[in-house]
Amino acid sequence: MSFATADHQVLVPAIASIADPVLQSRLQDCIDRKTKPTGALGRIERLALQLGLILRSEAPVLREPQALVFAADHGLAAQGVSAYPQEVTWQMVENMLAGGAAISVFARQMGIALTLVDAGVAHDFAPRAGLVSRKIAHGTQDASLGPAMSTAQCRDAIAAGREVVRGMPGNALLFGEMGIANTSSAALLLARLAGVPLADAVGRGTGLDDAGLVHKQAVLARTLALHADASAPLDALAAFGGFEIAMMVGAMLQAAHERRVIVVDGFIVGAAQLVARTLVPALHDYCVFSHLGAERGHVALLSALRAEPLLTLQLRLGEGSGAALSWPLIDAAARMLAEMSSFESAGVSDREH
Amino acid sequence: MSFATADHQVLVPAIASIADPVLQSRLQDCIDRKTKPTGALGRIERLALQLGLILRSEAPVLREPQALVFAADHGLAAQGVSAYPQEVTWQMVENMLAGGAAISVFARQMGIALTLVDAGVAHDFAPRAGLVSRKIAHGTQDASLGPAMSTAQCRDAIAAGREVVRGMPGNALLFGEMGIANTSSAALLLARLAGVPLADAVGRGTGLDDAGLVHKQAVLARTLALHADASAPLDALAAFGGFEIAMMVGAMLQAAHERRVIVVDGFIVGAAQLVARTLVPALHDYCVFSHLGAERGHVALLSALRAEPLLTLQLRLGEGSGAALSWPLIDAAARMLAEMSSFESAGVSDREH
Repeated sequence: MSFATADHQVLVPAIASIADPVLQSRLQDCIDRKTKPTGALGRIERLALQLGLILRSEAPVLREPQALVFAADHGLAAQGVSAYPQEVTWQMVENMLAGGAAISVFARQMGIALTLVDAGVAHDFAPRAGLVSRKIAHGTQDASLGPAMSTAQCRDAIAAGREVVRGMPGNALLFGEMGIANTSSAALLLARLAGVPLADAVGRGTGLDDAGLVHKQAVLARTLALHADASAPLDALAAFGGFEIAMMVGAMLQAAHERRVIVVDGFIVGAAQLVARTLVPALHDYCVFSHLGAERGHVALLSALRAEPLLTLQLRLGEGSGAALSWPLIDAAARMLAEMSSFESAGVSDREH
Repeated sequence: MSFATADHQVLVPAIASIADPVLQSRLQDCIDRKTKPTGALGRIERLALQLGLILRSEAPVLREPQALVFAADHGLAAQGVSAYPQEVTWQMVENMLAGGAAISVFARQMGIALTLVDAGVAHDFAPRAGLVSRKIAHGTQDASLGPAMSTAQCRDAIAAGREVVRGMPGNALLFGEMGIANTSSAALLLARLAGVPLADAVGRGTGLDDAGLVHKQAVLARTLALHADASAPLDALAAFGGFEIAMMVGAMLQAAHERRVIVVDGFIVGAAQLVARTLVPALHDYCVFSHLGAERGHVALLSALRAEPLLTLQLRLGEGSGAALSWPLIDAAARMLAEMSSFESAGVSDREH
């Protein structure tokens, strides 16, 4: 099983670099003329510059932010790598749709539209508003015994992710996920694609105890060795899963292709970003990393991605909860650029020289 | 010059401890039953517990948040301790009122009402909506030559701060400030009241260069020595200023007295909190520390206060900008408690044992 060059051409869209020295210089000058000491808004200023480059505007406006939560099940869950039973995946999707999950609460608070995408949950949902069915299968195969998905399934998942984004309004997408056992897939992708030692990539997920963690590490070491040949990004993705990660890869590629702002949640969304940006390095600059979480592999992942997270709140929930919590900071950065007055316009004296 | 016991009794209201073991246990159980792994919302969960205790509710609702920005001038500015001229204080107040300052933009975005309080700016403002005049004088005296303010002025400023809060709606106050040279007052208060070495307390403020920083340190060392006797909190406050800090002390005392949530901005607001909580230790638990900023003394200050900031964004602007940026996280913590479903109510399976 492996992906041919032809697959890449069909699956992977063109993504333009956001680099634009002339615009960057104009944006930096605009930021420096705002009524504040130079650099006094710290990280917010660097974020404003990035948003200005993505949206090609000195007065960027973030419109109709969309949270997309991709959910799927993992055959690997049968190996006892999670503290929660697999049925929690579909139950939490129902909870999100009913408005009671953390992402539901935070999205409502922040004015972010929430869409659940069934990428491959092992459960049949009744159709309803807010749920998009793109089910590839009722969960992946057990990656510790063979490939989590076929090449065709992986291709279908990426294509479906691209289609989901094509229909979305607005210019910013927040990525989240739900899938019991998906920290295992993320850890395996991190180990394979970034060369991070498995011991630094594997964590407690939703809350394994010490014995559970040792067991998870052993299962993942075995799984990594089984798929020693899966070194290219799409091959690794098919080997380790899951459907929600593959669909996020496609969605991110499409989002960057359309010059949308991509807000990356935690460890699992970060692993999808790792796959996507290994395919197309230019994707990276469209991404804002919302937070550094408490899952063990997240430090190594953000380090491998050279990513500077906005928040450090010891989150380890997923769902896009960190992305949603970071959203007001991202919006604030755009508004700083678009709405703050300059020393000249406000009649404020600049520094003494 | 010093404050008598009678002054304390008049100036300093009773503040109840938020400690309540029965309620705390109920709140923790409520948080643990939410549909998420135990502790998976990290810092947000600890914040939710604090808000529940302050507002004495398992479903706390933050109502009508108010940003109060206290502005004043400092006689010490004449010693060249700031990179910006003194007139910037009143110009920035005008800019905030006109809606063009960072705090104006962020408060508008976050749905926070903004009020400017003239605590002692060296300028006469025309009256208008959004501006509260509580001017003690046209700036403090030069603290390097004598006390910044008289005992009577300090008392008046604290009383005025209490009155300002008495009239405010809602149950949460965000504190901000504007005052050229006020990082000097904050550094002196930090050195005197927390015993932090001046070298660790003094920073570049709005952006002094190396020579400017050396000069500032020399001026402040001299000023600290001049007021060697001013060791009690109100005596130190009167010695070092400023009016905006004294007024924030009164406002915080009143806010805690009324069981409001107090959101602390950066270095200068933190110095006011240090004074207030030295007067009444129980005040501390009403405070949420919005961010760790880039001003040198802020690390030492937060450490002295045993405070855990929500954000670390290298901000060094003041105005309440960090407090406003942290507001959605605080609101999210309250909503998590009030709006998230429990495992039971959502029909989600708990972890496997």
